[in-house]
Amino acid sequence: WQGEFFPEIPQIKYEGPSSKNPLAYRWYNAEEEILGKKMKDWFRFSVAFWHTFRGTGGDPFGAATKYWPWEDGTNSESNKNLDEVIELAKELQKGSNIRPLWGTAQLFLHPRYMHGGATSSEVEVYAYAAAQVKKAMEVTHYLGGENYVFWGGREGYQTLLNTDMGRELDHLARFFEAAVAYKKKIGFNGTLLIEPKPQEPTKHQYDWDAATAANFLRKYGLIDEFKLNIECNHATLSGHTCHHELETARLNGLLGNIDANTGDAQTGWDTDQFLTDVGEATMIMISVIRNGGIAPGGFNFDAKLRRESTDVEDLFIAHISGMDTIARGLRNAVKILEEGRLSELVRKRYSSWDTEIGKQIEEGKADFEYLEKKAKEFGELKVPSAKQELAEMIFQSAMF
Amino acid sequence: WQGEFFPEIPQIKYEGPSSKNPLAYRWYNAEEEILGKKMKDWFRFSVAFWHTFRGTGGDPFGAATKYWPWEDGTNSESNKNLDEVIELAKELQKGSNIRPLWGTAQLFLHPRYMHGGATSSEVEVYAYAAAQVKKAMEVTHYLGGENYVFWGGREGYQTLLNTDMGRELDHLARFFEAAVAYKKKIGFNGTLLIEPKPQEPTKHQYDWDAATAANFLRKYGLIDEFKLNIECNHATLSGHTCHHELETARLNGLLGNIDANTGDAQTGWDTDQFLTDVGEATMIMISVIRNGGIAPGGFNFDAKLRRESTDVEDLFIAHISGMDTIARGLRNAVKILEEGRLSELVRKRYSSWDTEIGKQIEEGKADFEYLEKKAKEFGELKVPSAKQELAEMIFQSAMF
Amino acid sequence: WQGEFFPEIPQIKYEGPSSKNPLAYRWYNAEEEILGKKMKDWFRFSVAFWHTFRGTGGDPFGAATKYWPWEDGTNSESNKNLDEVIELAKELQKGSNIRPLWGTAQLFLHPRYMHGGATSSEVEVYAYAAAQVKKAMEVTHYLGGENYVFWGGREGYQTLLNTDMGRELDHLARFFEAAVAYKKKIGFNGTLLIEPKPQEPTKHQYDWDAATAANFLRKYGLIDEFKLNIECNHATLSGHTCHHELETARLNGLLGNIDANTGDAQTGWDTDQFLTDVGEATMIMISVIRNGGIAPGGFNFDAKLRRESTDVEDLFIAHISGMDTIARGLRNAVKILEEGRLSELVRKRYSSWDTEIGKQIEEGKADFEYLEKKAKEFGELKVPSAKQELAEMIFQSAMF
Amino acid sequence: WQGEFFPEIPQIKYEGPSSKNPLAYRWYNAEEEILGKKMKDWFRFSVAFWHTFRGTGGDPFGAATKYWPWEDGTNSESNKNLDEVIELAKELQKGSNIRPLWGTAQLFLHPRYMHGGATSSEVEVYAYAAAQVKKAMEVTHYLGGENYVFWGGREGYQTLLNTDMGRELDHLARFFEAAVAYKKKIGFNGTLLIEPKPQEPTKHQYDWDAATAANFLRKYGLIDEFKLNIECNHATLSGHTCHHELETARLNGLLGNIDANTGDAQTGWDTDQFLTDVGEATMIMISVIRNGGIAPGGFNFDAKLRRESTDVEDLFIAHISGMDTIARGLRNAVKILEEGRLSELVRKRYSSWDTEIGKQIEEGKADFEYLEKKAKEFGELKVPSAKQELAEMIFQSAMF
Repeated sequence: WQGEFFPEIPQIKYEGPSSKNPLAYRWYNAEEEILGKKMKDWFRFSVAFWHTFRGTGGDPFGAATKYWPWEDGTNSESNKNLDEVIELAKELQKGSNIRPLWGTAQLFLHPRYMHGGATSSEVEVYAYAAAQVKKAMEVTHYLGGENYVFWGGREGYQTLLNTDMGRELDHLARFFEAAVAYKKKIGFNGTLLIEPKPQEPTKHQYDWDAATAANFLRKYGLIDEFKLNIECNHATLSGHTCHHELETARLNGLLGNIDANTGDAQTGWDTDQFLTDVGEATMIMISVIRNGGIAPGGFNFDAKLRRESTDVEDLFIAHISGMDTIARGLRNAVKILEEGRLSELVRKRYSSWDTEIGKQIEEGKADFEYLEKKAKEFGELKVPSAKQELAEMIFQSAMF
Repeated sequence: WQGEFFPEIPQIKYEGPSSKNPLAYRWYNAEEEILGKKMKDWFRFSVAFWHTFRGTGGDPFGAATKYWPWEDGTNSESNKNLDEVIELAKELQKGSNIRPLWGTAQLFLHPRYMHGGATSSEVEVYAYAAAQVKKAMEVTHYLGGENYVFWGGREGYQTLLNTDMGRELDHLARFFEAAVAYKKKIGFNGTLLIEPKPQEPTKHQYDWDAATAANFLRKYGLIDEFKLNIECNHATLSGHTCHHELETARLNGLLGNIDANTGDAQTGWDTDQFLTDVGEATMIMISVIRNGGIAPGGFNFDAKLRRESTDVEDLFIAHISGMDTIARGLRNAVKILEEGRLSELVRKRYSSWDTEIGKQIEEGKADFEYLEKKAKEFGELKVPSAKQELAEMIFQSAMF
Repeated sequence: WQGEFFPEIPQIKYEGPSSKNPLAYRWYNAEEEILGKKMKDWFRFSVAFWHTFRGTGGDPFGAATKYWPWEDGTNSESNKNLDEVIELAKELQKGSNIRPLWGTAQLFLHPRYMHGGATSSEVEVYAYAAAQVKKAMEVTHYLGGENYVFWGGREGYQTLLNTDMGRELDHLARFFEAAVAYKKKIGFNGTLLIEPKPQEPTKHQYDWDAATAANFLRKYGLIDEFKLNIECNHATLSGHTCHHELETARLNGLLGNIDANTGDAQTGWDTDQFLTDVGEATMIMISVIRNGGIAPGGFNFDAKLRRESTDVEDLFIAHISGMDTIARGLRNAVKILEEGRLSELVRKRYSSWDTEIGKQIEEGKADFEYLEKKAKEFGELKVPSAKQELAEMIFQSAMF
Repeated sequence: WQGEFFPEIPQIKYEGPSSKNPLAYRWYNAEEEILGKKMKDWFRFSVAFWHTFRGTGGDPFGAATKYWPWEDGTNSESNKNLDEVIELAKELQKGSNIRPLWGTAQLFLHPRYMHGGATSSEVEVYAYAAAQVKKAMEVTHYLGGENYVFWGGREGYQTLLNTDMGRELDHLARFFEAAVAYKKKIGFNGTLLIEPKPQEPTKHQYDWDAATAANFLRKYGLIDEFKLNIECNHATLSGHTCHHELETARLNGLLGNIDANTGDAQTGWDTDQFLTDVGEATMIMISVIRNGGIAPGGFNFDAKLRRESTDVEDLFIAHISGMDTIARGLRNAVKILEEGRLSELVRKRYSSWDTEIGKQIEEGKADFEYLEKKAKEFGELKVPSAKQELAEMIFQSAMF
């Protein structure tokens, strides 16, 4: 139990929906079985090291506001320091079943990466990035991580005026190919994940959204080697709902992991807030259930305290709130599925396709001449209501 | 000459930049050769029948404002009426070299298409849409059209709650396959074009942007059968510059046609304005030159007069303004290319790749271990300035 | 009871949260008392004649889809027709307590209003608009309406290039002054309301948001004669939450009425959807409770069925869903207020102001020299956490 | 001449439009007279100390990239250090006519200001902010500054859930009142300026846009004591064009200064780029000319190099580019005004108001009954075209 590290924080227990205790779960009950799976196995929650333990509260207009008790300013940026940290982590893993959900390499903070990592205009930076990813993959493997994420933090451009986009995309593909080869060489079986993001810090990131990343993977023959890590705030920044991005990933066979955060519908930058909207959480869990779960991926809290939230307690409240929201989403999604009213509405809506002509079309056996003939037979059409308001009512009724 | 139809409008002639005559070209000089090609062949301008001749000025809050002299309210919506119109068009083509840049079928206005055409929940609507596209392809072929455009006007969804997105996308693929087969059957050699648009009228259109359309085409094995018709206002609605969408299409081998219009940077809907921004036009023409021209595609004015512009003369002013803007863009793009300062800036920026190690990486011969070894040799890196402000200065200096 | 008009729709009754009947209320219980007031008196719900009874389903890309049984195409656009309609309404009011929540005049559909009504470039249109508003005010008064709304449908500009904004704003002020005078002359005591909207159909509407409207009213000395009708979808289009606009109106003494609808966070136009988000409804009701209620204003459903929702039943489902959402919002808001945890959090946050120095400042008695002296005494400051995540947790816990 | 400080940079001279020298002006010619005023007096250009001399290149995802030769990491944050700096500045002013365009106090970087300065939840922070502004006003006065700017960097909220907006706005008003009193006390005659910004770093800034700031000033009786500093990128973030914000400020008698920068139409955060769009610059200068100039305000380059632009030379290129763009804007604006075609178009558009009835309305002498009578006399109206495309063509023709 983490009491050793947070002496003033009690163990967080499930107390049920009526609890008023901010340091308790109201909806997340780790061992409770839902649809044949324990809640903890549905979610496989993960804390983000950088946001939660090293986040400073800085923003484009503000200095650090957090002075965490454990923060002594040590910078782990060198392979040597990293090795020490890793050995300590390995030691702490003994007698625990905590493993990294995934590892990653940060290729955007240091000035050397100002033009990107794998897409830098400088070949030396490309080589440096490769060395860094190599090390991060080794470490992830060593600590029992089950996924590895590429976050294209500066893989993109600020202006096309000074950019050779075609050449940069080719370099990115070469980089991913080398990563796949190295993964196999070291026997790392984890999933490789790409994390779509439309922009920020660059004006255009090459992994804009799920469909853009899928097109890239298909174009360069990498579609079977990668999955996607969908982040909700990145989804909304690209003009999509989180649910849309999850479904797009799923339909392309690419749903691998979820960065469980949220944005602000009225601001145009990545706010990385903890998700508190139960409706959105419900949509997310509908996708996850359809996907048969998310393992070996999970839900990573790529979310940060607001700059003005400076108590250690706030870290716990935020994570509890995020976990409870998603757990509530699962409970609602199950309620909707078990009621069956919504899926029945959808089934009926498409029932004209469950016919002979529908089957012929879906099997690719209906050419334009045949279809024209059928259209004449059908005569003028009476198209039924889409029942959107009813679907919304059913959905909202399940919220609790 | 069109004087027959517009008796009060004189023939529009090129008068050069200093002309104050609104009914004259200042930059577009059809027969002038630029980079070895006549201006008219660079652009292959096209007028949109629906906007220019049938546009009413209606908007979501307003009734028709245009009462064009030729508009008698006749509706050509039936194959029989259409055939009469087509025969008249064929007749008028005699002694003229005017051909349709492309044909299309409108699958979104009529209530039968309220759930989409090829992606309707109703199989009968799918058949009806097929019959309509079949006819439109025949007619396009008959009139000597060189392209055929699919505009996915309602191919999308309003809410995922009542939508089976996977099934709808499969239907769309079947529809396109049947279109390809029919095209070949009737000997129509025109390019098939998909026109990306992110949303409106639906909340999500399946052809969101160039990358999304490319992913769809790749997934369903249609990538060699289609190209894209990039519309500038659709580009900006999807969060991209028009230049970005053109470059994305080009790098995917899909740049087929351009819908030359523009939006308003502060509004969130498709305003379909005539392009008047010379900087944007210059970027567009840089892409077109890189593409070696756009034929058999061209520039279609999918642009409409403002609702408040109700004079016949306004139609001419708007098209002249649009043509002049794009012609000015071509002149500027050529100036930039001939000066060579911008391409030299880009070449130098990537010069570290024109080396042995750069070549090895680009040929896929540099694995992570080799790259790590090289990274250690390189030592700490000095990354040069990206010179964005200089690139912008060079670009702006060429505007005239 | 409305059975006379909708024979196939049963009377809508309150059946409680567990009901699965789409034609029943789950949260709205008209006669139930909440905080000393009946639910029906908190809300004073109103149906929008234009959307609900005359809405066609047309959109910028689509024709009418609704063929309501009562719609015979009759156009009531003339004072004579209007008089007949009004007399019928007056007749139907007998034995009923249904009154118009407000009346308005529609100054944007007809081509004569294409440049605006009170801000048209044409003085004749200004006069016509005045005559129309005069009649609408008379009729509202006659039918017992308690408010009158000005919706600035085209009071704005498409481009500043052809617009004299200063002159147009002066004309708008003159128009409002004349309306105030006429209201008094005919003894109409209803509240005059301005409805802020940032844009659409024009690129810029003069009543952009609550603060902009307030500035206009103050500048022209009209601040005591008007209140605001806040529409939620207009709020989000202007970059604000609905709650923000309500609070801004309230703090300026201008909260008069609410157009209860919602938009889509990912689209840039006015979708006028029925509100189904319980969190947003809760925020709205917090403002209404703080305002001591909204009467003589109320909640008007300025919301329309989706174009694809074509059953008469859908009209009922949509309104029930909207009413239930707002009723659920009231119940949640009351729960939050009665628990008191959120208001206590806020009270504590500002407690440093409940001191001698705080009082001096708030009374305007602390000048810069005094403050500098105090600042030196205070020494370095320890600024406490804003507890945003805790506030969000408390808020979300109250959702049910 | 600045050669002393930048030995490798030659003096920047005017070389005219055909120059290819990036370290020369092509459009800005300081001593040239335009409309009776020297160019330098039209613009009164100012360099931003923080961006240009202390900017680090940091962004939310990246560390510093700039290592300017003069940057030794010294932090001037204390009145004592500041006094030294000021004395040095005073010394350097001797024999120069360089004066601060304006002074300001930065109330947002330090953690003490995380909840705002004048609107902090902590009364001690309010006092500290007052002391800091007091000092900054004194220093501005001492160095001959002619304006003082309040930038409400964190005067706003992150969420209304934990915020007492009414109380915070009252505090802000008290703060401004005290600033006005102190200004008078020390005999500082400079203009006090508020700089509107909609959001970032906070979710909502109280000085959202020009109209919002004007409403605040009117509500609290401060309208005669302040003007506005309009920043173009803030304008676009609030959904307006820069020209709109300038015109709104001007029509409210509040146009005081311009922060000459620009944003990116596709990104949702403050990019603070140097303005390079000649069309936008032309619109800006049209407003400035209408305002009779901007003195004692001026054009401040609140703009920063891109993070990837790391050469000292880039600083010069960026400023030259910005100055030239605005100078080109002035030349274009003058061309448009002197041609007179655009103002004639506008004059004619409103000519129906230059009549007896128009005069009666504008003088407030036309009541609704009179207007109804006139409307009947007018009969059905023929509303002329707004000629937007012609206006755009005239505008674009003047660009060179």
